[in-house]
Amino acid sequence: MSSWNQNTIHSDLRLFVDLTEELLRIEEEQPVAEYLEISDLSTKLDLHLPDEPSLDQELVDELKRLIHYTPKTASKMFFNQLFGGRHGKAMLGDLLAVVLNNSMYTYKAGGPQIQIEKELTEKIASMLGWGEDSLGTLAPGGSMTNLMGMLMARDAKFPDAVEEGMSTRGIVYTSQASHYSIQKNAAFAGIGRAQVRAIATNAKGRMDTKKLKTQIQNDIAAGLTPMLVNATAGTTVLGAFDPFEEIADICQAHEIWMHVDGAYCGSALLSKRYRHLISGAERADSFTLNAHKMLRTPLSCSLIIVKDKKHLYHSFSSDASYLYQTHDDDMNPGKISLQCGRRNDALKFWCLWKSIGTSGLEEMVDHQFDLAAKAREYVRDHPDYTLYSHDDTVSVCFNYKDIPAELLCNSLYEQSEIMVGFGSFREDTFVRLVTINSGNSHQDLQDFFAHLEAFAKKHLEVSVS
Amino acid sequence: MSSWNQNTIHSDLRLFVDLTEELLRIEEEQPVAEYLEISDLSTKLDLHLPDEPSLDQELVDELKRLIHYTPKTASKMFFNQLFGGRHGKAMLGDLLAVVLNNSMYTYKAGGPQIQIEKELTEKIASMLGWGEDSLGTLAPGGSMTNLMGMLMARDAKFPDAVEEGMSTRGIVYTSQASHYSIQKNAAFAGIGRAQVRAIATNAKGRMDTKKLKTQIQNDIAAGLTPMLVNATAGTTVLGAFDPFEEIADICQAHEIWMHVDGAYCGSALLSKRYRHLISGAERADSFTLNAHKMLRTPLSCSLIIVKDKKHLYHSFSSDASYLYQTHDDDMNPGKISLQCGRRNDALKFWCLWKSIGTSGLEEMVDHQFDLAAKAREYVRDHPDYTLYSHDDTVSVCFNYKDIPAELLCNSLYEQSEIMVGFGSFREDTFVRLVTINSGNSHQDLQDFFAHLEAFAKKHLEVSVS
Repeated sequence: MSSWNQNTIHSDLRLFVDLTEELLRIEEEQPVAEYLEISDLSTKLDLHLPDEPSLDQELVDELKRLIHYTPKTASKMFFNQLFGGRHGKAMLGDLLAVVLNNSMYTYKAGGPQIQIEKELTEKIASMLGWGEDSLGTLAPGGSMTNLMGMLMARDAKFPDAVEEGMSTRGIVYTSQASHYSIQKNAAFAGIGRAQVRAIATNAKGRMDTKKLKTQIQNDIAAGLTPMLVNATAGTTVLGAFDPFEEIADICQAHEIWMHVDGAYCGSALLSKRYRHLISGAERADSFTLNAHKMLRTPLSCSLIIVKDKKHLYHSFSSDASYLYQTHDDDMNPGKISLQCGRRNDALKFWCLWKSIGTSGLEEMVDHQFDLAAKAREYVRDHPDYTLYSHDDTVSVCFNYKDIPAELLCNSLYEQSEIMVGFGSFREDTFVRLVTINSGNSHQDLQDFFAHLEAFAKKHLEVSVS
Repeated sequence: MSSWNQNTIHSDLRLFVDLTEELLRIEEEQPVAEYLEISDLSTKLDLHLPDEPSLDQELVDELKRLIHYTPKTASKMFFNQLFGGRHGKAMLGDLLAVVLNNSMYTYKAGGPQIQIEKELTEKIASMLGWGEDSLGTLAPGGSMTNLMGMLMARDAKFPDAVEEGMSTRGIVYTSQASHYSIQKNAAFAGIGRAQVRAIATNAKGRMDTKKLKTQIQNDIAAGLTPMLVNATAGTTVLGAFDPFEEIADICQAHEIWMHVDGAYCGSALLSKRYRHLISGAERADSFTLNAHKMLRTPLSCSLIIVKDKKHLYHSFSSDASYLYQTHDDDMNPGKISLQCGRRNDALKFWCLWKSIGTSGLEEMVDHQFDLAAKAREYVRDHPDYTLYSHDDTVSVCFNYKDIPAELLCNSLYEQSEIMVGFGSFREDTFVRLVTINSGNSHQDLQDFFAHLEAFAKKHLEVSVS
C-alpha cells in the first residue's frame, strides 16, 4: 500500500522508465491512439480519486491504460496542431527540470538556472541585432508572451495605466489571420475586444498594410489612440508572414508599439535560408517565439525579447520584500515576469541547443520548410488535390477530391488513422497539414498522403459521390 | 557528435536516470548547494550556446556541474520558499506529462488527460460543497489563478469590459498581508494598482473586517464601485487565514465577488482537523489552491474553482475554429483557459492523489501543521528565541539572539548551510521558517535549529555582540 510519507523515488524513477519505454513502443506500433468516445471514458478507465491509497501495481495498470488512450502528439501521424515532436535532448532537459524543481523568480531559488534562461534570451536578442538595452524572459505559452507584449504597448502609450487603470481607448491592430489570443488578451488587459482592428489580408494571408495605414488614420481622426500593431510570423492557418518592413515604417511614423508574434514561425530567425521571411522583425519593440513549436521542445517554451528593458520593468516589476532578498534585479527575473513562481521552461531548450548547436537548430528549421515544399509538390502534382497555401510556409493546406475537410479530418481521427486538423481562409475550408515535426522524413509525408487516399477510398468516396 | 535528427530517446532516458540518481545522492550529502557567486558563473560553468553540436559526454559533464550548483529545493535544508518537497508519485506523473506532451485545450489533443483535470477540479469543488454549476481549471501558478479570479470579478461587475474595456473605477480589497500578485494583476487587468485597497490586519495578520466595511462604504459614498474582495488562506509571511465568514457576509451585502487566494494554505480544505481555518471559504465565488505548495507536486499546479461556470465562459471563452473542431465545450477546456496551448499540470497531482488517496493528502497537510507546532514549541521553550507567528499556521517566524534576520538568512545561504528566508510584519523583521515540506520529520526540524545555533555561534555572535 502506498503511503504519503514513504520514500519511493528510486522505484518511481524505474516505473517512469518502464512506462516510457512502453509509450515509445505503442507510439511506433500505433501512431494514433485508439479513439475513445467521451461517453466510454468511465468504462474504459478508472480515473476517480480514491479516499484510500492504491497499490502501486493498480496505479501502474491504470497509467498503462491511460497512456494507451492518450493522443500521441510526438508520433509520425500527428499533424493536428503545432507540436514539434520529441527530441531526446530537449526531453532530457525538461525531465531534469521536473526533478530539480526550481522556481525562476530569484537567483537564490534558481541559481545557475537563471543564467540558462539569460543565455537563451540574450542569444535570440543578439540574432535580432539587439543590444545591451534589450532583455527577455519566458512565459507559459505564446498567448502569454503576446499578452506581455500587449501590456508593454499599453503601458508605453499610457504610462499611468499601471497605477490608474485604463480609461482611454487604445487601439490594437492585427491581421484577420492572426492568432485569437490578441482579442482574448485585449479583454484581459482592460482594452476590450472591440478595440482590436482586424486588418484584412491579401490573397496570401499577409496583412494588407494599405488597409492598416487607412485604419490608423481613421482612428486618429476619430480621436482614438493607436497603441499596438501585432505582426505575425506564421499565421495560424496559412503560416503566412506579415510584411514586417512596411509595418515597421508605419509604426515608426505613428509611434506605435510593434510586437512580432512569432509563436509559430519566429524560429525562421535561426535559418540563413528563411531569415528573409522575417526581415524587418528586428525593427519591432518586442518579439516572441515558441521553441515548443518549430524547435521541438516539450510544452511550453515561449520566449519574449524586448528591445528596451525599461518596458519590462515598468509593466511587470513589483516589490516583494519576502521574495527579493539577495542579488541585483537582473538576476532576479521575477521582477520582469508575468507570474510569481515560475517553472523552469528554459533548461529543455538549453539542453537541445547545447547538444545540436545553432547549426542543428537551423537544419531543423530548414528541414520543416523542405518537408512542406515536398508536400506542396505532391499536392500540385496530383490532380485529385487542390492547394490553398503558398510557398515559404510550413502549413500545407489542401482538399482532396471534394471531400469536405471537416468530414475527412474527423473521420481520420475517430477511426484512429491520422491526427490532422482543418482550417479556413476567406471562403475556403481545407485540411491543414503542418510539417512542424522535424523528426518526420519525406517518406513519412508520402505515407501521410497514401494513408489519407486509401482511407478516403475505403470510407468516404462513396458517401460523397 | 550529436545530430539534430538522430533518434537518441532511449539513451537520453538512461542519461536522465543516471543524472537524477546523482542529483539524489548530492541532495542527501549536501542539502544546500555550494554557493556560487554570480561573478563566478562563467568560470565554474560553461553555459554558452555553441554554434556547432557538442559531444554527449560534454553535455553530461556540464549538466553534472549545473546540477551541483543548482539550489536543492527538495532537500531537508530548504525552507526558503513555499516548495513542498518531492513525492515520488507526483514526480512520476510530471515526468510522464513531459514525454506525453499533450496540450490541454481540446479533447482531441488531450484525450483522457482532460478528464484527469476534471476529476481534480470536480473533487475540490465537491469538497467545497459546490454543485453542478461549478467548474474549475488550472493556470500556471497562484498569481495566474488569482488573475483569473480578478478578471471574472471585473467582468461580473462590468459585463461590457470584455468587449469595451475598462473605463469605470472598480475597487479591489485585499489585506495588507496578502500576496503582491493582487496589485500586479490589477495593473494587468486595466484596473490599476491605485484601485487596490490594502486593508489593515489585526495583530495576527488577519484582515480587519471592520476596516474593510468602512472602506467599502467610503468608496461607495465617493461614487466608486466595489468589485472584488481577495481573502487569503495563508498569508505569504505569517501564514494567517482571513476571517472568511465575515468577509462573505460583507460581500453578500454589497454584491461583491469574493475570491479566496488559497495558493499557500487552501489545502487545509483536505484536513478534518484544519478545515475550520477556511470555514466560510465555501461561500466565495472563486477559490484557488496550489498543489505545488502544501501538496508536494512539482511546479506548477495551481487550481481555480468557480462556483458558477458562466463567469469562466464570459471572461475566457473565444472562438477559434482552427482549434475547436470536435466535442462539446465542457471537454475543450481551452474555452475556459487563460492560455491557449497549456501544459498538462494535472497528471502529477492525479498520480499522487490516486496513489495515496484523500486520506494520504490529509495526513500530509496535518503533518505540516504538526511540524510547525513542534517548531513553535521549540522556539517558545528556548529563551534565546523570540516568536512572531501564531498557532494554526505553517509559517514559524522568529528571531534568534537579536541577530538581524537578514544577516542570519543571507549568511546561512552564502555559506551553503541552510536555505531560509526572512519576512516582515508591521515593525518586525524575522526569520520565516515554513514547514511545508511534508517529507521532513520532527528530527529534521530539530536539526534545523541545532544547525542554525551552531552556525550563529561560530560566525555571527561575535560580530553582533
